[in-house]
Amino acid sequence: MLVRLAACGVCHTDLYTASGADPTGYAPCVLGHEGAGVVERVGPGVTLVGPGDHVVTLFAPECGECVHCRSPRTNRCTAIRDQQNAGYLPDGTTRLSRDGQPLRHFMGTSTFAEYTVMPEIALAKIDKAAPLEGASIFACGLSTGLGAAIYTAGVEAGSTVAVFGCGLVGLGAIAGARIQGASRIVAVDLSAERLAMAKHHGATDLIVAGPVAGEPRTNADGTITADAVEWIKSVTDGFGADYTFEATGNVGVMRQAVEAAREAWGLATMIGVAGKGETLEIVPRFLITGRRVTGSSFGGVKGRTQVPQLVDRWLRGDVDVPALLSHRITLDQVNEGFDLMHHQDGIRSIIEFA
Amino acid sequence: MLVRLAACGVCHTDLYTASGADPTGYAPCVLGHEGAGVVERVGPGVTLVGPGDHVVTLFAPECGECVHCRSPRTNRCTAIRDQQNAGYLPDGTTRLSRDGQPLRHFMGTSTFAEYTVMPEIALAKIDKAAPLEGASIFACGLSTGLGAAIYTAGVEAGSTVAVFGCGLVGLGAIAGARIQGASRIVAVDLSAERLAMAKHHGATDLIVAGPVAGEPRTNADGTITADAVEWIKSVTDGFGADYTFEATGNVGVMRQAVEAAREAWGLATMIGVAGKGETLEIVPRFLITGRRVTGSSFGGVKGRTQVPQLVDRWLRGDVDVPALLSHRITLDQVNEGFDLMHHQDGIRSIIEFA
Repeated sequence: MLVRLAACGVCHTDLYTASGADPTGYAPCVLGHEGAGVVERVGPGVTLVGPGDHVVTLFAPECGECVHCRSPRTNRCTAIRDQQNAGYLPDGTTRLSRDGQPLRHFMGTSTFAEYTVMPEIALAKIDKAAPLEGASIFACGLSTGLGAAIYTAGVEAGSTVAVFGCGLVGLGAIAGARIQGASRIVAVDLSAERLAMAKHHGATDLIVAGPVAGEPRTNADGTITADAVEWIKSVTDGFGADYTFEATGNVGVMRQAVEAAREAWGLATMIGVAGKGETLEIVPRFLITGRRVTGSSFGGVKGRTQVPQLVDRWLRGDVDVPALLSHRITLDQVNEGFDLMHHQDGIRSIIEFA
Repeated sequence: MLVRLAACGVCHTDLYTASGADPTGYAPCVLGHEGAGVVERVGPGVTLVGPGDHVVTLFAPECGECVHCRSPRTNRCTAIRDQQNAGYLPDGTTRLSRDGQPLRHFMGTSTFAEYTVMPEIALAKIDKAAPLEGASIFACGLSTGLGAAIYTAGVEAGSTVAVFGCGLVGLGAIAGARIQGASRIVAVDLSAERLAMAKHHGATDLIVAGPVAGEPRTNADGTITADAVEWIKSVTDGFGADYTFEATGNVGVMRQAVEAAREAWGLATMIGVAGKGETLEIVPRFLITGRRVTGSSFGGVKGRTQVPQLVDRWLRGDVDVPALLSHRITLDQVNEGFDLMHHQDGIRSIIEFA
């Protein structure tokens, strides 16, 4: 169906593909995947959404019928994977062109545009009470973080959590851990400004990571400069955190997330996307002594079913979405959005459509 | 209490420490940890076992009271860890000496000896109907394999399992997967002889791993020579096995176990012990797309509670223990036992005491 976009976040994955670094990328195509808008028209046979519905675009669709959709354990719908990865709609066509030459779709969404055509299984119908500007970040970054804590890891009440990296995804994981009832949430970042945001979203301990000489030291703003892994172990009887999350994509930080997870049952969840060819190195002894390592894409969120539930949590006050929207730009300014992201200025730039 | 040993398996961990390669090892000490015997005398206050009881020695004790014993998720009892790792009994003493000089204990067990002194929390009382020769391998190798499938991974009925390495631990994992009701169990090894044993214990597919040119080929004995990861994917719609187990300790094979695990929910369990300084390299994409990686020591088995249950399974016919006992030797022949192991001659050599 045809969706008129109202807002679209600018995400690292767009920049990654625009940069040419993504080995699965292709050009030319229309980027953008963190969109929210209103259904304008539907084709024959469409039953899941109708004109006027407010929707969040899903790069991870939910057909409800494939082997993965039928399992409660995963969101990795296989229904339209091959065509989507190749840059086409499920019927093998593209609906985009420039100067008469066809352009391919991107992530099945291509939401850096006033309008997009998408299959109904890739649209989550949300409550019209939710402002679409805020709803857009549920299309990727925020759902990815919230979902990693709620669905992938299933953080248990009373547990100790550590989140490495406090961009949108990490802040979402912090909010998700708080929602799940974690009693201690350690945020780790290089930026005191981001750690302040982490506190706003639920972090109880703020660690400025980096090369540290000597003992941890408490700073004037309440943050602590320390070796993150050692500090986390020092406050958990030497064992480590029940749940750790990696939200930077740096394989060295991933290793820290593994080593900061608790002996016996700690679960380290990888959310960040690593660079091409990079590998996470794990000393097997960390596994043998009971740690578990996993990851998820889109936070394990089943899009059509669970994105509306996450948006409802926002409307109930469980997560402060406006605090995550740092810049408003126009579609013409998308490259400025990439610059802001590159300089870690703010959490999320949102393209607003007239 | 004092235990008179009846039988003791010769395990890789003994050889690893004897070789000097174990960075946590020390000498002189009395090796051996896969023991079974009869309680001869008990000290004051001992209530868990009494003279005449048949017991399996536990290098992983179960105090029943520590933070880990109180959790159903782990067997990593912390009660006597520090003293045991240092080579002493819980009271800080050693009961071993040579020419008047004290010798340290090994793994809290030191069962390459006619008698050993151990704390009651480190002895599993078993059914007297179980021959002690067979019971000995429940003290380490067999329980480690069975437990990895039953307790650590919790293999589900109807699932597809792949086991890399068919020594005692791997054969135990195969038997454990069969007991759990796995519908397909792929055994991977370099040795056709070991693969024949894997079939005996429950494997349904036998893969001779190694450098393979071209297509998989079926051999006269029913084994298949193939790239194990590619073959496993080829018979699982490209997805991989629901559960994989690594039982060689080779980090390259560990990587294969990760990559052969199923997208979306596959669980790769590391059982083998890697060499000092070696790391498992994981391409993060395998995690992001839903695989999980873990490990366990002693198969996650809570020794005093669950070793007797595993022995009962043997007595009920769930696992063919005698088939795993390949050589009988005397204590004087222990170095020959190491040689047999080094040459992968048979599955387990058992020291029998007069």
